[in-house]
Amino acid sequence: MKQFVVIGCGRFGGSVAKSLSKLGHDVLAIDKDEKIVQNISEHVTHAVQSSGTDEQALHSLGIKNFDVAIISIGTDIQTSILSTLIAKEAGINYIVAKAQGNLHAKVLYKIGADRVVFPEREMGERVAHNLVAHNIIDYIELSKEYSIMELEVPKNWVGKSLIDLDLRVKHGINVMAIKHDEEINISPEADDELDHDDILVVIGHVKDLGKIQDL
Amino acid sequence: MKQFVVIGCGRFGGSVAKSLSKLGHDVLAIDKDEKIVQNISEHVTHAVQSSGTDEQALHSLGIKNFDVAIISIGTDIQTSILSTLIAKEAGINYIVAKAQGNLHAKVLYKIGADRVVFPEREMGERVAHNLVAHNIIDYIELSKEYSIMELEVPKNWVGKSLIDLDLRVKHGINVMAIKHDEEINISPEADDELDHDDILVVIGHVKDLGKIQDL
Ligand SMILES: Nc1ncnc2c1ncn2[C@@H]1O[C@H](COP(=O)(O)OP(=O)(O)OP(=O)(O)O)[C@@H](O)[C@H]1O
Ligand SMILES: Nc1ncnc2c1ncn2[C@@H]1O[C@H](COP(=O)(O)OP(=O)(O)OP(=O)(O)O)[C@@H](O)[C@H]1O
Ligand SMILES: [Ca+2]
Ligand SMILES: [Ca+2]
Ligand SMILES: [Ca+2]
Ligand SMILES: [Ca+2]
Repeated sequence: MKQFVVIGCGRFGGSVAKSLSKLGHDVLAIDKDEKIVQNISEHVTHAVQSSGTDEQALHSLGIKNFDVAIISIGTDIQTSILSTLIAKEAGINYIVAKAQGNLHAKVLYKIGADRVVFPEREMGERVAHNLVAHNIIDYIELSKEYSIMELEVPKNWVGKSLIDLDLRVKHGINVMAIKHDEEINISPEADDELDHDDILVVIGHVKDLGKIQDL
Repeated sequence: MKQFVVIGCGRFGGSVAKSLSKLGHDVLAIDKDEKIVQNISEHVTHAVQSSGTDEQALHSLGIKNFDVAIISIGTDIQTSILSTLIAKEAGINYIVAKAQGNLHAKVLYKIGADRVVFPEREMGERVAHNLVAHNIIDYIELSKEYSIMELEVPKNWVGKSLIDLDLRVKHGINVMAIKHDEEINISPEADDELDHDDILVVIGHVKDLGKIQDL
């Protein structure tokens, strides 16, 4: 099992730390803000108040024993860079760093980050794509040709069953799951009838998915 | 063509505004910070320095004529809420708002947001999943309990058919698609044999998906 250290536990770093922990991994969460440390402490293996730029403190925390570091300090670029450098020089094998922009990212790669992420930018692109067609709730590219789409049930599908609609033959798409309020049915049956507030998770060719958006 | 107004053009809002614009849509970008407005102005139809809480200013900008508003002020919750309320009362049909946490999200829904997003949280979850097992190629949350995962075929599944593996019963997951080089098979058959370089697109409960990562 890998050992993870997350430096900077804001919205992005905190989410990485909690998710890793939920997945059963050891996580050391570090933040300079005591409140943040308190909030995250119940969700991770260890939570410590310290600065990602305090080399000595990080050494005392045994930073060199970690396999992966996630540096998620986004606003203060200098701090993010220094912290990445310290993690690198401690010998951590895989370093993920959050960047604010392209220049920041370039520097992070140069000093040894293995992967740079732009959480807000990436999600912004996704949300924009989802917005341009209003019955589309989410859209995930699988390849250039195939995608997964979450969509509201088109009006004239309401009350019909999957076998009536014959979506595979008539529209080239497969229904993988049906969301109904908080429930998800991941094994839809042929005679399941669609409700007006169901959400369908479908897979298909982008061309076929495009046609459905116009229904 | 829809008219979009983005209020708060930080990393998330700025990305939404630029992406919508790139997709060919009219975008009015509003931020209280003049520098931000200057930076985004070349990427969108209009960019204006104004506050999302200044009702009169927003009315003068013709806010009621927009189809969709994206309120992406994350840090100052009060401002985000007030701004959402103004957009709602102006009669904007579809409002997306960025939230800092669950409580913030609840309030946003209550006052009329149609969709609330947590960009950093969502990307944090995705990055965490991609980190823990290098056989995970992508990870998409459908709900708190169910997700879609793209994964490389675990070694001991190679050469076996879906019916042999009986993944639904033995692992609680459904194979929705199989990627093979550039091809995607979106209707896997029970006797399809898995190749070592296939990529599986599976859907299942997060707990079951977590277990597969350890195979
Ligand atoms: N020197 C430091 N050492 C440790 N943690 C730090 C340091 N500087 C900032 N942080 C922490 O990093 C976290 C994220 O920083 P900041 O809020 O500046 O970035 P952000 O990119 O806006 O975050 P978010 O992921 O919330 O969008 C905060 O919780 C902050 O307390
Ligand atoms: N009252 C306001 N009116 C218009 N814009 C505002 C207002 N308050 C804040 N903003 C702008 O909203 C943007 C995002 O705000 P803020 O940085 O607080 O949120 P954030 O969630 O940390 O953003 P990011 O998407 O960059 O992570 C900033 O560019 C800021 O200038
Ligand atoms: Ca219903
Ligand atoms: Ca979200
Ligand atoms: Ca942010
Ligand atoms: Ca092959």
